[in-house]
Amino acid sequence: MSTSNHAQDAQDRYFMMLAIEQAKQGLYTTRPNPAVGCVIVQAGVVVGQGFHPKAGQPHAEVFALKDASAHAVGATAYVTLEPCSHTGRTPPCALGLIKAGVQRVVIAGLDPNPQVAGRGVKLLEQAGIDVTVGVLTEQAEGLNRGFLKAMRTQMPYVRLKIATSLDGRTAMATGESKWITSTAAREDVQKLRALSGAIVTGSETVITDDPQLNVRSSQLGVPAGQVPAPMVVVLDRRQRLEHSLQSDYQLCRRLDTLYWRNDDLTALLKDLVSEYQCYDILVEAGASVASSFLSQQLVDELIVYQAPCLLGEKARPMVAFNPLSLSEQLRFKISCHEQLGPDLKLTLYPL
Amino acid sequence: MSTSNHAQDAQDRYFMMLAIEQAKQGLYTTRPNPAVGCVIVQAGVVVGQGFHPKAGQPHAEVFALKDASAHAVGATAYVTLEPCSHTGRTPPCALGLIKAGVQRVVIAGLDPNPQVAGRGVKLLEQAGIDVTVGVLTEQAEGLNRGFLKAMRTQMPYVRLKIATSLDGRTAMATGESKWITSTAAREDVQKLRALSGAIVTGSETVITDDPQLNVRSSQLGVPAGQVPAPMVVVLDRRQRLEHSLQSDYQLCRRLDTLYWRNDDLTALLKDLVSEYQCYDILVEAGASVASSFLSQQLVDELIVYQAPCLLGEKARPMVAFNPLSLSEQLRFKISCHEQLGPDLKLTLYPL
Repeated sequence: MSTSNHAQDAQDRYFMMLAIEQAKQGLYTTRPNPAVGCVIVQAGVVVGQGFHPKAGQPHAEVFALKDASAHAVGATAYVTLEPCSHTGRTPPCALGLIKAGVQRVVIAGLDPNPQVAGRGVKLLEQAGIDVTVGVLTEQAEGLNRGFLKAMRTQMPYVRLKIATSLDGRTAMATGESKWITSTAAREDVQKLRALSGAIVTGSETVITDDPQLNVRSSQLGVPAGQVPAPMVVVLDRRQRLEHSLQSDYQLCRRLDTLYWRNDDLTALLKDLVSEYQCYDILVEAGASVASSFLSQQLVDELIVYQAPCLLGEKARPMVAFNPLSLSEQLRFKISCHEQLGPDLKLTLYPL
Repeated sequence: MSTSNHAQDAQDRYFMMLAIEQAKQGLYTTRPNPAVGCVIVQAGVVVGQGFHPKAGQPHAEVFALKDASAHAVGATAYVTLEPCSHTGRTPPCALGLIKAGVQRVVIAGLDPNPQVAGRGVKLLEQAGIDVTVGVLTEQAEGLNRGFLKAMRTQMPYVRLKIATSLDGRTAMATGESKWITSTAAREDVQKLRALSGAIVTGSETVITDDPQLNVRSSQLGVPAGQVPAPMVVVLDRRQRLEHSLQSDYQLCRRLDTLYWRNDDLTALLKDLVSEYQCYDILVEAGASVASSFLSQQLVDELIVYQAPCLLGEKARPMVAFNPLSLSEQLRFKISCHEQLGPDLKLTLYPL
């Protein structure tokens, strides 16, 4: 892999940013595949670009090379993930780049998929292509947290979403909870769902709320119908949702619902990766399920939609665990805070 | 008052912004007087500037005119508050501007002080000076919320400060509460105190925490010793702090502590304005006192320092009132959200 000067570095970051913008176009539709973008640059000019739109369809490099056609000869290709080296449903992209006559390939990060894992880079280098790895790696990896974590650890990336008041309450003591957060916040939840291979909820939530948990937003940049429907997992340890009852709930009439009837959430998460290729998991449930995931340290990202209201000391708490002292509190790092309509959205990482 | 074209408007806003920056230099030291700044402009060039530093010292206009000396003749003066028309500890500033030969005066907002209230403008206009009122009014008034509210309504501007966890808890069930929020958040509280004529707390807080409640920050831009010490008001309805006990608490050994021994918070606030010239009040107390102010709609601004941690469902709640249904919740508008070290600071206005 070559070294480069500062001007080259700045240029590389700029074109990689464009490749990341390409990748984002597939963000909600490529599951279980990662979102990948590619830009082909000839003498400082973009001559081709493309992204992977959907599992089973060609990879980003194929679209970008087709777009560039003869201009690819001697060009630099910017790819947000290491080009593949194996023949899957499509031929290996590394070979495609070689055949097209590309002179240099800049890659944001290596593909930890055991079928690739550096072999793509090796193929390119063996063909005499100059390869640079590690440009805007963090930004590019941000698009595929689930895929990357699953490939590396066989565990999915778990997002826990909670909607609360300013005083950390999710509903009145009576259970009354409609409209705590705004339309803008609820639209944003649709994006989290659209990112997810599976949504995990509790039997209590099904029984009391019977939520739809489907992706029905018009603000994803793609028609909701093109987003692969997330699987729904109902935690039903006590078997409260007997088969005869399930048809009472609209959620349970869905075909892709999994009932998980034991306590072992780690086993569930492993299964979701190995059996169902679900790499991004969204937990949308009550305080009890949320607290189980939190206290077992199974949450990678906590997303809090906070409505600027006070519901009072008897309203329902957002978590259901009880640290005995301050030293046992759960602590987070704020990654992002933004206003959505009247509400606040906080994105946090556990410390 | 004259009309002006767009170029004139932009110029007026720019120089008023400079006058507001001047005013800010007195923000923590002028109490009970308002913070006021003045800039003198001759042919588009600033020839003089000044601010009111402290009650008893000259007003902003005096410093700015002195700074401009002969350049004030024919110049435009930008003042963040209507120049005074009455002789107090200093002669009226409207006369000073007239005598200096100023041709035009631009004022952010009128002074609602019954001793001024438009009379300053009248004096200037009678002397043939061109007067414009209403440039950056909101920004300028933001510096003197307490003074302006008190002059208009005889009630002070009340800020309620609460430090909580993400799940709306202020302490463990045991009372353990040290270090929930960070040094950065606690430094910021010093600024709220420095803005305040009085800090209101509860007897419970004195007995359990014995807080200092003094201004001891090094980050105010002025030495803490120059900030008039806020008066401390202890709500002690049940007379738990008998005179014999008071000396047990460092807070109560202060000279300027007022014990309020009845239920009527509105009467207290009125008294703080009329008897003590306290126009900005900071409430720093427990959930019970906070909730009294909130539920009696006596809070103008809620400031929440939110630490990104979860303390659990048995930890102490941030408010102690109980709306019976969602329709009785207290709702706010988010004015500002910013990160302070690891924590979040939210500034909210009641709806």
